[in-house]
Parts: sequence; structure tokens; C-alpha cells
Amino acid sequence: MTLPGFTGSLLDRADEARHDEAVVGAMRADPDALLLDMDGLHPIGAEQGALGWTRLRHVTIETELALLGTIEGTPRFVALQPGVSAVRRTPELFAAITALPASDAGTYATARSLVDWHARHGFCANCGTATLVFRAGWGRACPACHAQHFPRVDPVVIMLAQHGRGADARIVVGRQPAFPPGRYSALAGFLEPGESIEEAVARELKEEAGVTVHSVRYLASQPWPFPSQLMIACIGLTDDDALTIDRTELEEAFWVTRTEVAAALAHEPGARFLPPPPYAIAHTLLSRWLTEA
Amino acid sequence: MTLPGFTGSLLDRADEARHDEAVVGAMRADPDALLLDMDGLHPIGAEQGALGWTRLRHVTIETELALLGTIEGTPRFVALQPGVSAVRRTPELFAAITALPASDAGTYATARSLVDWHARHGFCANCGTATLVFRAGWGRACPACHAQHFPRVDPVVIMLAQHGRGADARIVVGRQPAFPPGRYSALAGFLEPGESIEEAVARELKEEAGVTVHSVRYLASQPWPFPSQLMIACIGLTDDDALTIDRTELEEAFWVTRTEVAAALAHEPGARFLPPPPYAIAHTLLSRWLTEA
Ligand SMILES: [Zn+2]
Ligand SMILES: [Zn+2]
Repeated sequence: MTLPGFTGSLLDRADEARHDEAVVGAMRADPDALLLDMDGLHPIGAEQGALGWTRLRHVTIETELALLGTIEGTPRFVALQPGVSAVRRTPELFAAITALPASDAGTYATARSLVDWHARHGFCANCGTATLVFRAGWGRACPACHAQHFPRVDPVVIMLAQHGRGADARIVVGRQPAFPPGRYSALAGFLEPGESIEEAVARELKEEAGVTVHSVRYLASQPWPFPSQLMIACIGLTDDDALTIDRTELEEAFWVTRTEVAAALAHEPGARFLPPPPYAIAHTLLSRWLTEA
Repeated sequence: MTLPGFTGSLLDRADEARHDEAVVGAMRADPDALLLDMDGLHPIGAEQGALGWTRLRHVTIETELALLGTIEGTPRFVALQPGVSAVRRTPELFAAITALPASDAGTYATARSLVDWHARHGFCANCGTATLVFRAGWGRACPACHAQHFPRVDPVVIMLAQHGRGADARIVVGRQPAFPPGRYSALAGFLEPGESIEEAVARELKEEAGVTVHSVRYLASQPWPFPSQLMIACIGLTDDDALTIDRTELEEAFWVTRTEVAAALAHEPGARFLPPPPYAIAHTLLSRWLTEA
């Protein structure tokens, strides 16, 4: 069974340590403690197939640190970068992520989401005052109104609508204008306050493709660190294969057969579409649909 | 099959309308348009078994409105309340929620989470400037740095660890100090950046109860509007029934059998514990475990 990308990190998040400044101080003073090598939000050296780490005692840190946790007993930190801007999804970044083992990609996802959140959340949403890092980098506290703020994780549903069963089954794939040429993927959208996962799946498929689904089934999840989503992958069944495409969201969408999905995942010449990359849960979703659904 | 509480709202969220001020204006001018009756965050009249709505044209609104969507074609709004403070979980509130049909509870959850988010997010987290409502109440925009902010939904995993199979199966329930006397429930915790659902389930069970699980299985989800969580209910299997309870999180935790869970859900005299309330997904989780797992 294919594991979703960005899952399988070996990090022990050491949650209880975050609450104790003396423990965090001791971890930081550990001569073996390591700092993640980052150039802005880019994982330095990942192209070579592993995250880079430098002994904390060998570097001068001018910003605050966040405690990622421990791996094999060794404390791991990442430097916060108040001014960093989120360089999104360059080909170089995705080449680096593709080169990483899943466990390293998951650790990078954690670090990236955390650093990015701090960079864009330096002020209190409740009163506008500049906030201060606390809990070893896992929160920000307001010195004025005492509100505590924690890193955001935005749930996103990503899903297939399936029509028909067995060998005749087909699913909907679509493309956003920003996708690389030829790529199609599962439809997706942010879950909103007041919705269950199943309700968000049904709403998004209705909004984007005009498809009414029932029997929504959860398949898998992954963190997606651009900047910090929880991708929740599902399949819903529909009895009506008419499509009404929302052109403000999707450039195109169509039904594809098992044979067409298999050809796409195998990158066969003449395949009807190019698949999402292996580290995206849409890839996992298409693969599992072929083998399980 | 028991549906989780707060699911089944009849709201059509009318997402595309939010992006068009003219459409929202026409909905607001609709003589049938309705405003949700709220006293702070309390749903007025819910004790009688239904949400209260007042014709928008009959009231003077001094704050901004958010468009909830439409129900049976009628536009529904809720008034934002910049200064409202979240009165949490009073017995009166939960009596009102218990009296509501599931569909109304879901609509209330949406309204409550949205109003509460605006009240606590009047300033730009990126630069500290006061922000302005946009997108018919579904976002706030910063006039200074132009950052756009959207309502938060915080994913929370809530789960059972199961030891043994069939008639011999047992699960862990625990209680937080703030629970009413005698109540035990599923363990739960916030999912963090860089985690999948399955990873968060395993981490939380390890942290709170010292239990190592494998084969984590998703069961159901619900919105939880205190203030705005997505509750994701799962079951994991464990081969070791030793418990190491984190007393900073839990007052007590123990293993319970199917018979004990059935007695608790039936509120039998002498039951080993009192169950979570029916509108909490922990109740759904316990019920489904009895019938499905
Ligand atoms: Zn503040
Ligand atoms: Zn701003």
C-alpha cells in the first residue's frame, strides 16, 4: 500500500518538553543537538536525498529556534525567520522533495509549516499587538491581551466522484489553470466552519463539477506544507455522470476509466492525462482507487 | 447508523454568491431574507426545538452581516458581533443544542464559529492593522499589507485504542478534570502541522495514555463549534494494554469492555461511567464501536 507523501516522519515531537523551559534549554545545550539546514524555506541539500543538519553548537543563531522534537534521541531544531517569504512550489523545490525519503519529507513539512506560520503571524489577531514566541516555538502569546495563538492547520478535502462500479467505474479528474500542461488531478477545496468531512466533499463536488455524491468514504490523509494544509482524501459515489464545470475554479474536468487512470499513472505515451506527482495525496488516491475501489 | 451531532445542516452555502457583492446585496434586500436569532453566541429559542429566525427587514442591524447561505431558497444571515465573548459550554447552551434537530444544530455551529472567529480576529496577524470584512463575512482583508484571512478550522483527532478482538475487545476511555463528575470519553487532541490524521492519532494515544497503536481506521467526523474544530474520529488497535496516564491531560483513564460501554450508553444504574452527550462525536464513536468494530 502506497503511503501518502510527507507521512512517516521519524520525529518524536516531545510535546511535554515544550512546556518546560528548563528541558528545552537542556536540549538546546546538548552537544549533539542539530539545526535543520534551510535557505529560506528551501531544504538545503535535499536534492542529494536527505535533509541536511548542522550541529547547533557550530552555528551562530540570530533568530529564535523552534524545537521540532527528537530523532534517534537527538534534539532537532529549526530557526524561525521572521521576514521569510513563502517561495511557492518551484520546480527545484519539488525536485528536492521527490529526492527525499518519505520520513525526511515529513520532517521538512513540519519545519516548513512552522517557520512559515511564524513569519506571517507576528501580530495578535485579537488586538494587533506584536506577539512573542512561546512553548518552544509552537505558539505565540500576546503581551497585551494575553491571547495565545497556535500554528494553523487548514483541513482540505480532496476527492474522487465515482460513477458506475467494477470494470465500468469512472472517476472525475480536473485541472486548475495553474497546473503544468496536461496534468489532471482529484478535485479539492477547503473545509469550512460547521461542516463535516463528508459534507465538505459533497459540497465541493457539487460546486466545482455539478456532481451529487452519496456514500462518501475516507481513504487517507497527508500534511501539505504550502503553507499548512491537512489533505483529507475521500471517494464519493454518484448515480448521474452529467458534469457542470465551475470555470472560475477549473479549466477542465472529465470522466476517466480505470484503463485511462492506469495509463496516466504509468506515464504511458498517449495517456489521456498527466498524473499528479507521487508526493501528492491525489496520486495516492488514484493508485488506491485502481487497486481497492 | 447514528449521524454525528452538528451534521446534516440544510444550508446551501452559496459560495459563488459570496464573491459577488451585487448578488449578496440582492439576497440581503430579499423581503423574505432571514436573520438568525442570537443573544451573544446563544441561539435564542433553541430550547423550544428550533432555531429562531427574524425577517431581516424587520430589524435594525448595527453591525455587519455574514451570509450563511440559503435554506429552502431563502437567504439566511447572521449578525457579526465584534465584542462578543465566547461563553463556553453552559448547561443552558447544551440543553438548547440537545433540543435542536441535527440540521438546525449544524446551521448554528456554522453561525457560531463564524461570529466567534470575527470577534477574535479583528486585526491582521501579518502586520497588526485592523482588518475589514469581505466575501460576505467569510474572510477579513488587511487594508495595509493586503493579506487575506479566512475563518480557522482546527482539526482534532478523537479516538479509541482497542485491545483484543470480538467479544473480548476493550477500549480506553479517559476523563479530563473539567468533565462533569463520572463522565468518561474518547481521548482527543489537536492535529499539528506536518502530521497525517493517522500519525496524530498514534501520537496522542502515546502521549496521553502510553498506548502504541497500529491499523488506525477513520470512522466519522463532525464540526465542533467551541470555537471551531473539525473532530476526526478514529479507532486504532494495540497489542499491549499497559496504560501510562499523562496526569497533566487526564485525571483518569481505564479499559472498558463492550458490556461496560453498552451499560454506559444506556445510562444503566451502576454503569462504570457516564457517557459523553449524544451531540458529541465521542458518543457516535462509542455507539459505532459497539455495533461495527
Ligand atoms: Zn492581543
Ligand atoms: Zn496586514
